[in-house]
Parts: sequence; C-alpha cells; structure tokens
Amino acid sequence: MPDPSLMDGHAIAAAVRDGDLSATEVITATLSRIERVDGSVNAFTDVVAERALARAADVDAARKRGDALGPLAGAPFAVKNLIDIEGLPTRAGSKINRERAPASRDGAVLRRMEDAGAILVGGLNMGEYAYDFTGENVHDGATRNPHDLGHMSGGSSGGSGGAVGAGLVPIALGSDTNGSIRVPSAFCGCFGLKPTYGRLTRAGSFPFVGSFDHLGPMARSITDLALAYDAMQGPDPEDAAATTRPPEPSLLNLENGLGDLRIAMAGGYFATGGDPEAFAAVEILANALGCDRRVEIPEAARARSAAYLITAAEGAALHLDRLRTRSHDFDPAVRDRLLAGAMIPAPWIERAQRFRRWYRDAVAELFRDVDVILAPSTPCRAPKSGQTHFVLDGVTLPVRANIGVFTQPISFIGLPVVAVPVRVDAGLPLGVQVIAAPWNEAVALRVARYLEREGVVSAPSAEL
Amino acid sequence: MPDPSLMDGHAIAAAVRDGDLSATEVITATLSRIERVDGSVNAFTDVVAERALARAADVDAARKRGDALGPLAGAPFAVKNLIDIEGLPTRAGSKINRERAPASRDGAVLRRMEDAGAILVGGLNMGEYAYDFTGENVHDGATRNPHDLGHMSGGSSGGSGGAVGAGLVPIALGSDTNGSIRVPSAFCGCFGLKPTYGRLTRAGSFPFVGSFDHLGPMARSITDLALAYDAMQGPDPEDAAATTRPPEPSLLNLENGLGDLRIAMAGGYFATGGDPEAFAAVEILANALGCDRRVEIPEAARARSAAYLITAAEGAALHLDRLRTRSHDFDPAVRDRLLAGAMIPAPWIERAQRFRRWYRDAVAELFRDVDVILAPSTPCRAPKSGQTHFVLDGVTLPVRANIGVFTQPISFIGLPVVAVPVRVDAGLPLGVQVIAAPWNEAVALRVARYLEREGVVSAPSAEL
Repeated sequence: MPDPSLMDGHAIAAAVRDGDLSATEVITATLSRIERVDGSVNAFTDVVAERALARAADVDAARKRGDALGPLAGAPFAVKNLIDIEGLPTRAGSKINRERAPASRDGAVLRRMEDAGAILVGGLNMGEYAYDFTGENVHDGATRNPHDLGHMSGGSSGGSGGAVGAGLVPIALGSDTNGSIRVPSAFCGCFGLKPTYGRLTRAGSFPFVGSFDHLGPMARSITDLALAYDAMQGPDPEDAAATTRPPEPSLLNLENGLGDLRIAMAGGYFATGGDPEAFAAVEILANALGCDRRVEIPEAARARSAAYLITAAEGAALHLDRLRTRSHDFDPAVRDRLLAGAMIPAPWIERAQRFRRWYRDAVAELFRDVDVILAPSTPCRAPKSGQTHFVLDGVTLPVRANIGVFTQPISFIGLPVVAVPVRVDAGLPLGVQVIAAPWNEAVALRVARYLEREGVVSAPSAEL
Repeated sequence: MPDPSLMDGHAIAAAVRDGDLSATEVITATLSRIERVDGSVNAFTDVVAERALARAADVDAARKRGDALGPLAGAPFAVKNLIDIEGLPTRAGSKINRERAPASRDGAVLRRMEDAGAILVGGLNMGEYAYDFTGENVHDGATRNPHDLGHMSGGSSGGSGGAVGAGLVPIALGSDTNGSIRVPSAFCGCFGLKPTYGRLTRAGSFPFVGSFDHLGPMARSITDLALAYDAMQGPDPEDAAATTRPPEPSLLNLENGLGDLRIAMAGGYFATGGDPEAFAAVEILANALGCDRRVEIPEAARARSAAYLITAAEGAALHLDRLRTRSHDFDPAVRDRLLAGAMIPAPWIERAQRFRRWYRDAVAELFRDVDVILAPSTPCRAPKSGQTHFVLDGVTLPVRANIGVFTQPISFIGLPVVAVPVRVDAGLPLGVQVIAAPWNEAVALRVARYLEREGVVSAPSAEL
C-alpha cells in the first residue's frame, strides 16, 4: 500500500471499502503530509483536523456495521475558501470577509461530496474575491507552484491547484469565472473540470460574477474528477441559476473511447499570442487524437474583451459598498481593477451583453459540426512569483490581466471544459482545454480519459 | 347611422357585416375627418389613403362574396410611427431614422390587426425614439391635446392618444416603456392597454429599452380595446421575448362583472406627490367598485429610480453610434438625456437590475392577496404645451422627467394595466391605472368594462 496521502480518491475509496485501509489512516496520513509540506506551498488557509478525524471515524464505523459506503468513501478533499465551511467565516480570499459570522452550514457542493463519502480536510487559499489569475494574495501570502516554488500557482483557485499538484489531497473544489479552475490546473499540473454554466449548484458560496461563476472539481486523475463531478450534480432550489436537469452520471461512459467524436483544434485567436510550447501542447493532444482539423471560434477576441468588461463592472457592483468604506482593506491589485470597473459606462456593458447573445448563438452553431474543440489553457507556463509583465508573441503585457486570454472567451458563455495537464518537455507543465457543447461534460471527460489512458496527459508528481 | 368616422370599431364591424355600411364609406369618412381635423391636432405623420381605400374595397368585395369577415372588419386604425408600415421608413419620431430604407413588410401587430379586418389609415406622431412623456417633437411638431389644443397630448404615444381622443380613428396602437401608452391615454381621455411584458410580439417595431418595451392598443371603448388586444395575441418566433402561451381571448369574460375580485387602491407612494384631482380620480373608481382597501407597493420610489436609470443607460446603448456621429440631428431634449445615460456607471445599473428582481418578487407576493390595484396614471392633468416645470405637492419639478412617476414603477416589472379615462370635473380628463398580476390582462379589462358599463369611466368627445 503506498502512502495513502498520495493515492487517488477512487483508489482510497476502494481500499477503504475492501478493508485494506481505514479512513482514519488516510486522514491521519493526509493531515501529516499537509503539516509537513504545506509550509512551502501555502495552499491551505484552514485545516479542519478534528472534523476530518471525526468524519473518518464515522466512515470506519459505517464500514464495520456493514453499511454501504459512498464512491469516495474516505477520500480527503479540500475547498477553495469561498465555499462555506460550517463554523468558519467564508473569507473568499479577502481580509474584510473574515469579520463575517462563521458559516452556519456547509456549502451545497461540500455537503454533496461528503454525502459521497469524501472527507473535508480544510479550506484553500485563493486570489482575493476570485479576481485573480496568479494565486497571489496579500493577506494570506501566495500559493506557490508545487513544481517550482519560485513560480505562480495560477489563480484564483491557487490553493486548489497547489493542494492537488503538491499531492496534499487527491481532489479539491475550486471556482472558475474567467479561468480560475483551468489556469491553476495548467500551472500546477492537474485535471480540472469547469462544468456547463448552471450544472453545479453554487448555494453556500461567495459570488463574483453571477452570470459566469462556476464551481468545479480539480484532481490528479480523470476518474476522480468524474466521481467528484457526479457526486455534486443535481438540481438545487437554493441556487436559482442551477439547472433543473437530473444528474447525468459521467462515469458510465468514461471508458467508451473516442467513438466517432468530431474533434478539432481552435484556430485563429487560439493559435496566436502565446508561447510556442502552449501551442505545442495542443498539437500533442491533436496528434494523439488523430485530429488535424481546425475550427475558428468567431470573434473570440471580442468575447474576451466583453468578458473582461462585464467582470470588472459586475465585480464592482458586488463590492461597491466595501470599496466605499473599506478600500484600504482590499488587496491593492484587486481594488484598483474594481475601482476601474465602478466607472465603466453602463452602455458599454449593455453592448457587451448584446454581443454575448450573438456570440453564444454563433458558437452553438459551430458545435453542430464538431463535438470537441482543443485550445491552450494559458498562453505560457507559470510565471515567476511576483512577475508583473511577460512577453507574448513579442508584445510586453501585464501578467495579471493576460493569463486568462484563452480561458475567458470559453467561460463567458458557460461551455464545459476539462483542463488536462500536458508535459511538452522537462519544464513546468502546461494545460489544454478540452471544450464541449453545453451539457456535454461527459464527452469532454471521455476524451480526457482516453488521453490519460494513452499516457498523453497526466498529473506530474511534485518533489516535495 | 352616425358619422362612421366617430363610431367604435366593433360597431363599425357590425354595421359592415350587416351591410348597413360599406368599409369604403367608413374609410372615406375617416380620411375626410383626418383631413379636416388633423391640421389642428397633428396626430398623423403619414396617411396611407390609397392603401386604406384598396383594403376597404377588399373587405367590401369579401362581404359581397359571402366570405366570413373579421371581428374588426372595416374598422380604421393607425399605428405609432415606430411600428413598420410597408413602404415607409420607420422614423420612430426621429429625423435620423427617416433616412432608412422603407420597411419591406408591415410590423407583426399591424399584420394581425389587418388579419382581423381592421384597416390601417396611417402612421402616428410620437416623441423622438419614444423617450418622452409630453407628445412634443421638434421634427414633426407637437401633437396637441384634442380636448384643449393649448395643452400637451402626453407621450410618447402622443399621436395615438391625439388620434383616438380627437375621434380620428377608433383604435390606435402605441408603445409603452415607462408610461407611453398610459400617459397619453390619461391626457387625451382614452382607454389604453399596456399588456404583460412579452404578451404581444414586437417584431417589426423600433425598440427603446428591450426589457420593458411593450406594444398595446388605445381606444374609445373597452370592447374595442379587448378586440384589438385579442387580435394581436399569440406567440411569434420573430420576437425572442414574446410569450409562447397561446392566445387567451379577453373578450370571453369581459361582461362577467366583478365577481369576488379583490380590489385595492395603491397607498403610500401612489397616494402622494400629485395634484388632489389625480387622487380624486382614483377615489371615484374605488367608490364605484365598493373598495376601501389600500395596499402598499413596496419600494415604489426606488423602482421608479431604477427604471429611470436603466432607461437612460439602455437607451444610450441603443443610440450610442448615432449620438457619436449625429448628435445635432437629435431632438435636444432627448439627446441630452441620452448623453447623460451614456455616462451612468455600469455598477449602478447592475444594482438597479438586482433591485428589480427583488421588487418583482415582492410585488408578486402582494398579488397573492389582491387581484387588482388602482393607481393614478399621472400626477396631474395635461400640462400646457411647452410648459417645462410644474408644482406637485408644493415641489417645483421638471415636467418631462416627472409625468411618469406613477407609471414607471408598474411597467418596470411588466405588469398588465388598463388605463381608464375619468372626469373629475369639467376640466381636462385624468386617467387611472387598473393594474393586474402578470398575464391577468383579462381581469383588468373586466374591471374596466364594469366601470364603463356603470358610466364611471368613458372617453370624452372632443369638440373639433
């Protein structure tokens, strides 16, 4: 039996079910690894050791009684600290929010994970109020890249990427508004699922941009990703934007291979403006999938701009009272963008929203001819910690604003994406987005699983 | 047989069906009355005499053949000039739009009226781009109040109110974003229906604020109003915001009386800030309905402000290119408000929209206890032409911005309203809003018809 703290969630659950491991052993090993390693990664802002051990004891007792165990029985997980954890203030990466009353109840996705047997071990670091692609945070310190501690984890789900990438937990939950699951998945070398907008309930989580906030899992294997995703599916009357569709278990068809799926690379906007290795990563996948087709996602640059504007304006609307009364308590890098957002003229946003409707329809049209589109997750590997500018395609650009150039146009219209980790060479990992039509998460997961089985994509181990 | 140009639409249709009148006689008399009277009222911007006479000949030929005739057979009507009329540029009250190509097809509601046998006689004057409560227009001149030519018709459907109030047509179509049907109905002494948002298709009309633009009929009797409304109902795939509900004919239950309808006056906001006679008009109706109950529409002042902001910002978004390139071709009174709208910060609008969702739910809650709410249509009678300020409740206010104080909070959430004309004394008429829950137009029409049958409300004749 390997160190249980480094096993996948589904392997842990199988071992717990079979009696090869107790949940208590798993959690004890996990807590000890977090204790040993997280000082250097800084993925966790809260560790709920007592709660986790009590829950592990429950799982072990249930097994002893012969009760049926959930598909993630005993698997440790952690959540971005914008998801409510009973008894803790939901800080959402901010200083201001930690003055809030402790949450009286766990967030909905957390409850669903525990209903499937998984065990929460803590809350994870994140960029302030999720307005971030770097994983840096002035209040809690940056989450460091587990594959090179001098580099960024990516954000805003930086703690989630760091925790999974460092092998602290097999599964973490994050949120993705403009790329906040896909960017740290790429930089930290893990799998991430940003589901279709509305697929997973957001009840009991702190919002950012209501019309394109998504919650989703990150993991070291597709099977874990699918298990966590399936555990969290289903309608929730407490989130008005959540779908009313019944759960559509993705695990059922996970091993079905490619069948006659029509796969294409995104051309144009998604094939320029990045480092060569970002596009090389896409080529590696395309080759493995026997795909030489390119499609053009129309007006992607405009989509990115529109997403950018709406994010700034809606974020500012959400935080307006705090900006007025507590501006000195914000992370300066976040505050300044929110202040700018507060001054965007309303007709710009109205036009951006109008364009969005057009764009949604145009992309839907595209998906009549293709089932899966491949695009880079980021234009480059993880920048160095504190780096403020980078050069992309010969142009010097600010890092914070431009890491999400390839993720923003996709989440803007809520398309489901599986972000897969790829190693182009011995350097830091890169990520590729496997994008499907709305509600077709299962198709993207199937393709990702095929690539994983073929050894084309995998989560690299961190030397920590 | 009276002058057919002064008969109600349903009476004309009955006479045409019975052979007591030909459609040609009706249209000839109507065109002649427009010719004679409209010089002083200025309700029409276009008269389509040739088309109307040809259509009348068709109706007469159909009758001669023994074909079934529609419920409005031979009844003349006219449309606000933001509804497409084949062969004319849809000016929407502007100078700029009359450079557009002539419409290649009639607007959907116009086609539906003609399908019911009604005959279009022309296009009607309106405030520029519908951003108006006065009925004044710098390009086409003001529509004058048919009951006192020195006073405003109200707007922006001023031509519609003027044409019906002056007895030029029994039925006119208008549009209502913040009160543009209800205000001229009040000032010109006619009935007006602003249906539930989404009830009537807007395909083939020039927009203003997409999320609260409504089209609807104005008439001198409730039966005509209901006939026109019924004729225009039904889904329309060409308007994405139009309901998919099948038509719900209102005429069926029109004569059912009050039954056990729960009726209340709107208190608070709707019972202050206006001239005493505006509230006296509501009391007259309440007495006739045996109603002494008051309900409070919560946060109505805030709803009015939110509607005001969203109107300015969305209007500016719609006209941004024209404001940039053609600002000197706008009506200055409209341009300046649009320019101000172009600079409203986006987070204000985001907050206004968020409030709107709260307000919609709060008012829906109110309608669990009550079926119909009465409120004044305007805070005063028609101001004098050109009047820029008035004193309401001791406060001097600009006229343009404040005529709609009582209509804006209602259309903001798309509630159906029948505006009914009331005479408090020998002075100019006033209007009262009979407001129902969403999709309950038929209830408001029933109440209005009861009041009409009891002689409490009626469209006064103009001395022209």
